[in-house]
Formats: sequence, structure tokens, C-alpha cells
Amino acid sequence: MIDEVQFNSDGLVPVITQDASTGQVLMFAWMSAEALSETVSTGRAVYFSRSRQKLWRKGESSGNTQAVTSLQLDCDGDVILMKVEQHGGVACHTGRAHCFYRTLEPVAGESSGKWMITESVIKNPDDMYGRG
Amino acid sequence: MIDEVQFNSDGLVPVITQDASTGQVLMFAWMSAEALSETVSTGRAVYFSRSRQKLWRKGESSGNTQAVTSLQLDCDGDVILMKVEQHGGVACHTGRAHCFYRTLEPVAGESSGKWMITESVIKNPDDMYGRG
Repeated sequence: MIDEVQFNSDGLVPVITQDASTGQVLMFAWMSAEALSETVSTGRAVYFSRSRQKLWRKGESSGNTQAVTSLQLDCDGDVILMKVEQHGGVACHTGRAHCFYRTLEPVAGESSGKWMITESVIKNPDDMYGRG
Repeated sequence: MIDEVQFNSDGLVPVITQDASTGQVLMFAWMSAEALSETVSTGRAVYFSRSRQKLWRKGESSGNTQAVTSLQLDCDGDVILMKVEQHGGVACHTGRAHCFYRTLEPVAGESSGKWMITESVIKNPDDMYGRG
């Protein structure tokens, strides 16, 4: 299972996390072989934090865990698409449902555009992480 | 617009391409600043090919172009989610609708699993690329 995944020179594979019910892409992160193994064995999303350089068990601070419903591997074996049920409805550390909350307007036909915030904060990040 | 995007040390940003109608994640690729600018100005997906080290105007060989319907930027500004209308219904170079055609079975609760092919080839790649 792990053998067929092409990890990059840092030993990581990119993971696209998608809401299993709505199809919304929630977030994008990375997994090491150890993170992938733990994800598969526990059925909970475990990533590798590049900033902290350690396993990141999604939701261990915020409670917003992700129950994995499927794992898919792409044609080159170097990208994983993971479908999850998002506990608490919040995947982003900003307290939004997902991380892709800036939308380019206008999208096309112009030489440029502006990123506009198109998604509201649902939970206060300070409450999510027990700060403040 | 470009200024708010955090390109990596290779000058690239990862792009998740999603079917605007079905929500299916079609593929994962990279854009340079130039590729992103051309995507925005033309309304057609233009990536940067890491293997060929040049702009990759999706569909220029296969005819399977992608009309962009939205571009979204994530919380860290370093991942783009792009929604498209996929011309020809085939996004993957293997002739499948999308690239994530291997699914792990069983997905969870076991220490391992097998990647099973769960998506059929729709078009012959040799026909798509004018070979054979």
C-alpha cells in the first residue's frame, strides 16, 4: 500500500481533503509514510506538519477531527485525494468551514483580478484552540 | 492578484482542479506566476509542467481543454482551487475522466490495504495524443 505511493524528496505526499457529503474541497496538506499508515489504521486524518516537522493528528487541539471515508491515489502515484466527514464543520484554522475562502473576481477575461473573502468565520479560532 | 499568491522556492503554486458541475476532483498540477496570469487572462487552464519545465496549456495536444469558472486561494495563500468545465470529459492523460482512479480497499480500520482501479478508461490515450 505504502510502496505504491511516490513520496517527494522530503518524504511527503500532497493530500487533497474533500468533504465526502458536499464535495467541498476543505484543505490541502501533506502526509509522510507514517502519517498515511496511521490514517489508514485509525480511520482518522493524520498529516505531517511541515512547519512543526511532526505528525499532525487533525483535531487534536481544536476537536475538529476528520473521519476518513475514502483514499484515492492519482495516475502518477504522487497525490492523494482523501474524502472525510469533517467533525464540527470547521476544517480551517481560521474558523471557516474550509481553507479556500478567497475567490478571484473577476475570474477570467481580464488581465488581473482581486481575491475577495467569500466565506464567513463560523468559530472563533481563540475558542477552537483554547486561547484568550 | 499575483502578489498575494505564495509561490514555493521553485516559483510554483499547487493547483487542485475540480469539475465545476460534479465536484469531482479531476487533477492536481502546478502553476508559475506566468501560468496563473495566462489562466486568468484567457479563462483557460494553463499549468507549468515540472517535467518539461515550460507552460502547459491544458488540452493543446489532446483537445481536452478546461474552461475556468472560478479560482480560490487558501488561508496561507499557497494553494489554488480551480473549478473548470472539462472539455471532452477526460482530464487524465490515461484517458480517464480524472486522475484519482485508484481507491484504497479497505480504507480504514486495517493496518494496510490495496489500491484498486475504480475508474474506466473512456478514451484511448493513443487517439488523444495522435499516436499509434
